[in-house]
Amino acid sequence: MRFLPTLLAASLMLATGAASAADTSTVIPAAAVQTATQLRDKAMADDTGYKIVASLTTEVGPRIAGGPADQRGRDWAIAKFKELGFDKVYTEPVTYPLWERRSEHGAIVAPFPQPLMLTALGYSAGTPKGGLTAEVVKFDSLDALKKASADAVKGKIVYIGFRMTRQKDGHDYGMGSAIRTQGPVIASKLGAAGYLLRSAGTDEHSRTPHTGVTGFTDPKQAIPAAALSNPDADQLERILAYGKPVSVKLDLDVGFNGSYTGANVIGEITGKKYPDQVVAIGGHLDSWDPGTGAIDDGAGVAIAMAAGKLIRDLPQRPDRTIRVIAFANEEMGLWGGRAYADKHAPDTVKHQLGTESDFGSGRVWRMSASVKPGAIGAIEQMAKVLAPIGVAYDAKRPGGGGSDLSQMHAKGMAALSLTQDGTYYFDYHHNANDTLDKIDPRDMAQNVAVYAAFSYMAAQAQGDFGSAPGAFSKDGAAE
Amino acid sequence: MRFLPTLLAASLMLATGAASAADTSTVIPAAAVQTATQLRDKAMADDTGYKIVASLTTEVGPRIAGGPADQRGRDWAIAKFKELGFDKVYTEPVTYPLWERRSEHGAIVAPFPQPLMLTALGYSAGTPKGGLTAEVVKFDSLDALKKASADAVKGKIVYIGFRMTRQKDGHDYGMGSAIRTQGPVIASKLGAAGYLLRSAGTDEHSRTPHTGVTGFTDPKQAIPAAALSNPDADQLERILAYGKPVSVKLDLDVGFNGSYTGANVIGEITGKKYPDQVVAIGGHLDSWDPGTGAIDDGAGVAIAMAAGKLIRDLPQRPDRTIRVIAFANEEMGLWGGRAYADKHAPDTVKHQLGTESDFGSGRVWRMSASVKPGAIGAIEQMAKVLAPIGVAYDAKRPGGGGSDLSQMHAKGMAALSLTQDGTYYFDYHHNANDTLDKIDPRDMAQNVAVYAAFSYMAAQAQGDFGSAPGAFSKDGAAE
Repeated sequence: MRFLPTLLAASLMLATGAASAADTSTVIPAAAVQTATQLRDKAMADDTGYKIVASLTTEVGPRIAGGPADQRGRDWAIAKFKELGFDKVYTEPVTYPLWERRSEHGAIVAPFPQPLMLTALGYSAGTPKGGLTAEVVKFDSLDALKKASADAVKGKIVYIGFRMTRQKDGHDYGMGSAIRTQGPVIASKLGAAGYLLRSAGTDEHSRTPHTGVTGFTDPKQAIPAAALSNPDADQLERILAYGKPVSVKLDLDVGFNGSYTGANVIGEITGKKYPDQVVAIGGHLDSWDPGTGAIDDGAGVAIAMAAGKLIRDLPQRPDRTIRVIAFANEEMGLWGGRAYADKHAPDTVKHQLGTESDFGSGRVWRMSASVKPGAIGAIEQMAKVLAPIGVAYDAKRPGGGGSDLSQMHAKGMAALSLTQDGTYYFDYHHNANDTLDKIDPRDMAQNVAVYAAFSYMAAQAQGDFGSAPGAFSKDGAAE
Repeated sequence: MRFLPTLLAASLMLATGAASAADTSTVIPAAAVQTATQLRDKAMADDTGYKIVASLTTEVGPRIAGGPADQRGRDWAIAKFKELGFDKVYTEPVTYPLWERRSEHGAIVAPFPQPLMLTALGYSAGTPKGGLTAEVVKFDSLDALKKASADAVKGKIVYIGFRMTRQKDGHDYGMGSAIRTQGPVIASKLGAAGYLLRSAGTDEHSRTPHTGVTGFTDPKQAIPAAALSNPDADQLERILAYGKPVSVKLDLDVGFNGSYTGANVIGEITGKKYPDQVVAIGGHLDSWDPGTGAIDDGAGVAIAMAAGKLIRDLPQRPDRTIRVIAFANEEMGLWGGRAYADKHAPDTVKHQLGTESDFGSGRVWRMSASVKPGAIGAIEQMAKVLAPIGVAYDAKRPGGGGSDLSQMHAKGMAALSLTQDGTYYFDYHHNANDTLDKIDPRDMAQNVAVYAAFSYMAAQAQGDFGSAPGAFSKDGAAE
């Protein structure tokens, strides 16, 4: 009879993360909660975050990894950290394959000749000089393509027209990004000449195609691959519906070009008690090139920098170090995040808690955590401070650490997820419309408030959150 | 004492257009009103107009005057008139200077290098090979530019940043288009190297620059001139606000290239009683090239064609001819409208009444007329039929005849204005987003209902509307 209650208790513990008696509980001291509350309220009325993202997007503009603005982006980040008064500013090199976009054009050749607005996908191959013309074969889904015979695909341009719908949590991007990353690889294996998709974006009336990386890892495997804007995808589908063969010309001067070494740029507010223990927050410094990388991810960099700056402005330094990381080349495969995790894996246990902001500038509405059971109480203390600014604690979900820091979480870093409102995120994500005007300064302030308050509380906590090598593999944290 | 009442009566007559006793009053017979009412109701539930604009924008796509799709557009119009069962289909040649857009790029060179999304304006000069780089000088208004000294402008790129706001009647386009047409000419005379404006468009968050014609009439006078998208204009203004010299590179491969002869394409439903008397309606077949010319002006062509088709489907032909004109090259200066007016000036009196649809596909909400006083009663009869579908008669405003047909009105043709809801028109006008998805089929149906009902009543009227050489010069109708 004891068996059933014990199982039930265990499953409840798993579900709610309630502390077991065996754990030493982690606690945020009352004074730290009070200071975090003040930080929160100060941040809500502060425009530091907005000013930082305005500075980055205006002074550097588009920042494709390895492109002409990569070095200028790093220089900007170093200078900005220093200007904001960070105690320590340094870089860590990140090396990755260089992929370049030089020009891109597309057109329907027959039966109704007209230009198409498209953008090449990351790691796409270029077309031969003069372009590539082939018949289009449409698939209704990624699954349909997976089941296709090589005969149906060989020499053709594969097209998939999945239509993302607008959601607060942006979950359609799961399928949208799978079609963008896996689709080209499958098409290439089947002998396709090229690949097109309807943009993974919710801006159904805007002729701004959304770029993004493919799953090509080897230049030899790559074929030309591009995204059509939503209205262009509508047009292609209307033309396909006439039932005549439709041929499209792709003229993409893009491709792999050796390798490039950039860097993660790191700024720290040095902890006065445990300087080698760090709360890790950040965003990624690179952006896709059509826009100026305001929501993706100037906002994330700015939120984390501003949170650090607000903590720095307190009368004294926090107990632990606040480490703000501006990651290199997130967009083409978490290169900065992986380099960071590889380098810092030996210090996993010194990572008190971490998470990255990389979902635009919409307000944080949900917090979840992957921490040891004994730290759940501390997470609940954080949740109480964040609840008045609209953040609900979801005890049933793990924390993921964000995009690049997911890699450190995979090593065993305790992590939060601070989920932003992504209702409009996929209107602008990876396209030309990712510009400063999409950011509401008040939303930025709320994000900074969340990051400043949680980071400070994590830095002041009595006890840790359970970071240890491989500690969170059961949450699905994987490299 | 009689003097004052007489003056008052005269001014009321002018204001309301009330018939004077001396006129023979024009009347719509009751049977025609009944048939027009049925036509209206049928059209409201009909999708012919939407299907036509879908066909044109899908099968022909962008249709810049003299460009690769010009001939295909004419072929489409001829075939569509025939398919719809028009009795007579013919063309009338229109010759105009050929202006071509081959490629266009722009960038901020200093202090913060980054690309700019811009589009060259019609009749702009090209830049030298390799582009033109010059410092930007900003003016707050067209008036400020008019007052500028040559010293302030010489060798620089002039920029004006007027911001259009959203209005139902789109009246900000008056200033927006003045800055686009007159601005480059003034800048050129002052010795400017180039010209930039904030797009004359209300899509404040969209990186879709709006093209449109300049006032350059002589290639020797032309300088490179382009429009920035609204977010790019924001960015340029933010960078100018740093107070450092800002230089911009324009690389425009565009320009005049001889002349081109296209054609107005005309379809007629032949009148059975007075075949040589015509009700003239239409739209323009050319479009700007970034979009597919759905709202500007595929919609207008489709509205007029569909109205003609619905009248054609009546048990018998109308008394007078319904003439549907798909005009050539409206965009670069009413070339089709002027050619039509020049050719048909001798037949002014045979133009019963006319108006063109060229303000998108929003619903018609206002009707006004320039007709002889004795035809006001007939206009009021039309207004009664149109009121139930949302059209208000404004007796105090003249009728203008629309864009191209304004030229025939200037010769003396009686004309209506059927004002459409332009709230969103300038989001898409002259830019890449002018595509089929912007058109609501129900709005198209309402427009077709208005055109079918008024055209039929005009064709059946007992009496005329006052067309005669120079008849409406007092309404401001001018060539």
